[in-house]
Amino acid sequence: MYQLGIPDEEFIRGKVPMTKEEIRILTIAKAQIKPDGIICDVGAGTGSLSIEAALQAPKGMVYAIEKNPEGVELICKNVDKFGVKNIKIIEAYAPAGFEQISRLDTAIIGGSGGNLDEIIEAIDRKLTVGGRIVINCITIQTIAQCIAYMRKRTDYSYEAIQVQVSQLQQVGGYDLAKAHNPIYIVTCEKRGGKNID
Amino acid sequence: MYQLGIPDEEFIRGKVPMTKEEIRILTIAKAQIKPDGIICDVGAGTGSLSIEAALQAPKGMVYAIEKNPEGVELICKNVDKFGVKNIKIIEAYAPAGFEQISRLDTAIIGGSGGNLDEIIEAIDRKLTVGGRIVINCITIQTIAQCIAYMRKRTDYSYEAIQVQVSQLQQVGGYDLAKAHNPIYIVTCEKRGGKNID
Amino acid sequence: MYQLGIPDEEFIRGKVPMTKEEIRILTIAKAQIKPDGIICDVGAGTGSLSIEAALQAPKGMVYAIEKNPEGVELICKNVDKFGVKNIKIIEAYAPAGFEQISRLDTAIIGGSGGNLDEIIEAIDRKLTVGGRIVINCITIQTIAQCIAYMRKRTDYSYEAIQVQVSQLQQVGGYDLAKAHNPIYIVTCEKRGGKNID
Amino acid sequence: MYQLGIPDEEFIRGKVPMTKEEIRILTIAKAQIKPDGIICDVGAGTGSLSIEAALQAPKGMVYAIEKNPEGVELICKNVDKFGVKNIKIIEAYAPAGFEQISRLDTAIIGGSGGNLDEIIEAIDRKLTVGGRIVINCITIQTIAQCIAYMRKRTDYSYEAIQVQVSQLQQVGGYDLAKAHNPIYIVTCEKRGGKNID
Repeated sequence: MYQLGIPDEEFIRGKVPMTKEEIRILTIAKAQIKPDGIICDVGAGTGSLSIEAALQAPKGMVYAIEKNPEGVELICKNVDKFGVKNIKIIEAYAPAGFEQISRLDTAIIGGSGGNLDEIIEAIDRKLTVGGRIVINCITIQTIAQCIAYMRKRTDYSYEAIQVQVSQLQQVGGYDLAKAHNPIYIVTCEKRGGKNID
Repeated sequence: MYQLGIPDEEFIRGKVPMTKEEIRILTIAKAQIKPDGIICDVGAGTGSLSIEAALQAPKGMVYAIEKNPEGVELICKNVDKFGVKNIKIIEAYAPAGFEQISRLDTAIIGGSGGNLDEIIEAIDRKLTVGGRIVINCITIQTIAQCIAYMRKRTDYSYEAIQVQVSQLQQVGGYDLAKAHNPIYIVTCEKRGGKNID
Repeated sequence: MYQLGIPDEEFIRGKVPMTKEEIRILTIAKAQIKPDGIICDVGAGTGSLSIEAALQAPKGMVYAIEKNPEGVELICKNVDKFGVKNIKIIEAYAPAGFEQISRLDTAIIGGSGGNLDEIIEAIDRKLTVGGRIVINCITIQTIAQCIAYMRKRTDYSYEAIQVQVSQLQQVGGYDLAKAHNPIYIVTCEKRGGKNID
Repeated sequence: MYQLGIPDEEFIRGKVPMTKEEIRILTIAKAQIKPDGIICDVGAGTGSLSIEAALQAPKGMVYAIEKNPEGVELICKNVDKFGVKNIKIIEAYAPAGFEQISRLDTAIIGGSGGNLDEIIEAIDRKLTVGGRIVINCITIQTIAQCIAYMRKRTDYSYEAIQVQVSQLQQVGGYDLAKAHNPIYIVTCEKRGGKNID
C-alpha cells in the first residue's frame, strides 16, 4: 500500500518535468484532501500529484487535466502502475476541460501555461466553500501574478511559502549537498462568497 | 477531522521549541506510517509530531518520550485538545524509557540530547525489518554524527535532505519572505539483519 | 583600514533595518565600483552600503539618498565613525534628490518605497554607458516589478539571483543554523542607447 | 581592470569544478586580504580564487597549491589570461608544498582532499596573528571536521555560514530559479598564541 510520499523513481517519467517528492508531499498536505474529496490537478504532467491525491481520496475522484499528449500517455501508464481507479484524465488546455467537472473540493495547479487567472476562475466556479487551491510556482512571474490575483479576491485567504530542498548525495566517504530548484507553494482557501448553485 | 499538516497555531505551545508545519509534514511522510503502526517519538517536545503520527495510525500506537516535565504537560494538553486516544507518554531521558515498548514499526527522533547513537540502538532492538527511523537535525554536530553512525550500520540504508522554508508575510501591499531555520531530515530504513526475538 | 565586508556590529544602528554583511558584500561586488566612480545609494538606511561603496571609490563620490530623518542621522554617525570623506547625504524621497547629481557610474537601490520605475528612470538619465544598477529586493512585488521593468528596457541587460544565508550560532557544544531572510539581487547593465548630454 | 566578482564564464575551465562567482566573492571578502598580503589558496582548482585574491593583493603574493596536473595547467592559463604577476603555483598534495612559503597573512582552503587538520596546522605554522583562514566546505563531513577542529583551537575564533544561491534564468517570458548547491564558508581568525619566529 502506498502512503503519501512516493519516491520519484517509482513514477514512470518521460522528458516531462516532474514535481519532486518533497514538493509533492507538501502540496498534497497543504491541499488537505478528504477521503471522499473531488480534486482537480491542472497541468498534471506525469500524473505524480494526481496519483498521490487519488491515494488520499479513495472514495473521491481526481480529474487530471493535461494538454500535452505525451503527458496524457504518462499519466495513463502511472495510473496503471499504481492501480488507482479514481483518476479521470481530461486532455485539454486549461481553463478548457472544466465542463466535465460539476463540483470541486480541492484544486492543485502544477502548471498553468500562462492562464493562471482564468484557471483559478474556472476552478472557483466549481469550488465548495472552505475548499482549497494549491498552486506550485517556479517562476517569478507566476508567483507574482498568483499573489496579485489572490489579493484582489477578498473571498479567499492565501498563504505562500518558498521551499528549497537539497539532497545529500553519498559519494565515497562524503555526503555532498545537491540543491533542487526552489519553488513557491501558494495555498488559497475559499472563505465564503458565491458558491456553485 | 484532522489531515496531515496541522497549522502551527493550533498546537498549545509553551516555551518549548516546536517543529514547524512543513518539517512536520515531511517528517511524517518520510516515516511512512501505516494505519496500525507502532511508533515512537523521541524528544517529543510539544507533542506536535506525536499527534500527527497518531492521526496517521488510528489503529496503532504512538509512544511519546520526553524528559522535560514542561514538555510532558504540553503533550498532555495537546493530546486532550486533538482528542487522540493512541498516544502513551513516557517521561524519560532517552535512551531510557524503551523498556515499555515491545515492538516498533517506525521511530521519529525530534531531539536527541546528545545520545543519538544510544537512542538509535535502543530503537533498533525493537524495530521491525523494513521499519524506518526519521531524524530531525538542527545542528552540524547532530547531522554529522547521525550520518557517521548510519554509514557504519550496513543493515540500514539512509537518505538525507536539508529543507529550508521561507514564509511570505503579507505586510501592507507587499509579501515579504521570512526565513525559517534550515533543518536536516535523515530517513533510515532497516533492510534486514537482526530483528527482535 | 577597512576592506569590503565590514561586520554588521561595527555599524551604528537604530531601528532602521540594515543590509546584512553577506548581502552587502555581494551587492557591492556586483556593482563593480571603480576607484574614481560616482555612485548613488537609494534608500541608504543606516548607510552601510554607502560606506562600503565609499571605501571602494576613494577618489570617487557616493550620494546617499534617504527620506527618513532617523536614517539620515544614522548615516551621519556612521560616516563619522568610519571616517569616510566621500559621501554626500541627500535627504529626499527618491526619485527626488537626483537634481544634485550630474553623472553616475553606478547605482545601488536598497529601498525603493514603491517608486522603483521612477527611481530607475531618474538614475538612467545620469548613468554612463556600461554603468550598473544593483537592486536589492526583499518582496515578491519588488522583484517582479524590477524584472518586468528591465525586460522592457532593451538598452539594459540584467542578471538576478536569490541569496539565502544561514549563520551557524555556537550554542554550547553545538553549531545551530539560524537563517537570514532570503533576498533577490538584480544587477542591470546599461549597454548603450541614450546617455547624458 | 578587474574588480572582485569576475563572472564565471571569463575563467578558462576544464572538467575541474570551479567555485561559483558569489561564493568566490564572499570567500575573498571574508578573507580580508590586504594590498600587500601573502596568501595561499589550497586546492586551487582552476585558480579562480587565486586570481581574485591576487587582484586584491597587487603588492602581495598568492601561493596556489594544487595536486592535480590538469588543475595546474588551468591555473597557468588563467594566470596568463588575467595577466596577474603575483601568483606562484605549487604542484603538491597539501599539506605538502608549504616549505616554499615563509609567512602567510591569509589562507583560503577550497579543497582539502581529506587532510583538513594537517593543512590547517601547516598554515597555522606560517600564519601571522590576526590572520584569517577561510574554508569552503561542500560536504557534511568537511564542515563537521572543520568545526570540531576549530573548537579545539582556543587560539582561533571562527564564524561559519551556509550560503545558497539561485540564479534566475530568463526563459522566454519567464524568470526561472535554478539553484546552485549550498556551501559552508568557515572564517577562522588567529587571535594570538604562538607565531612564527
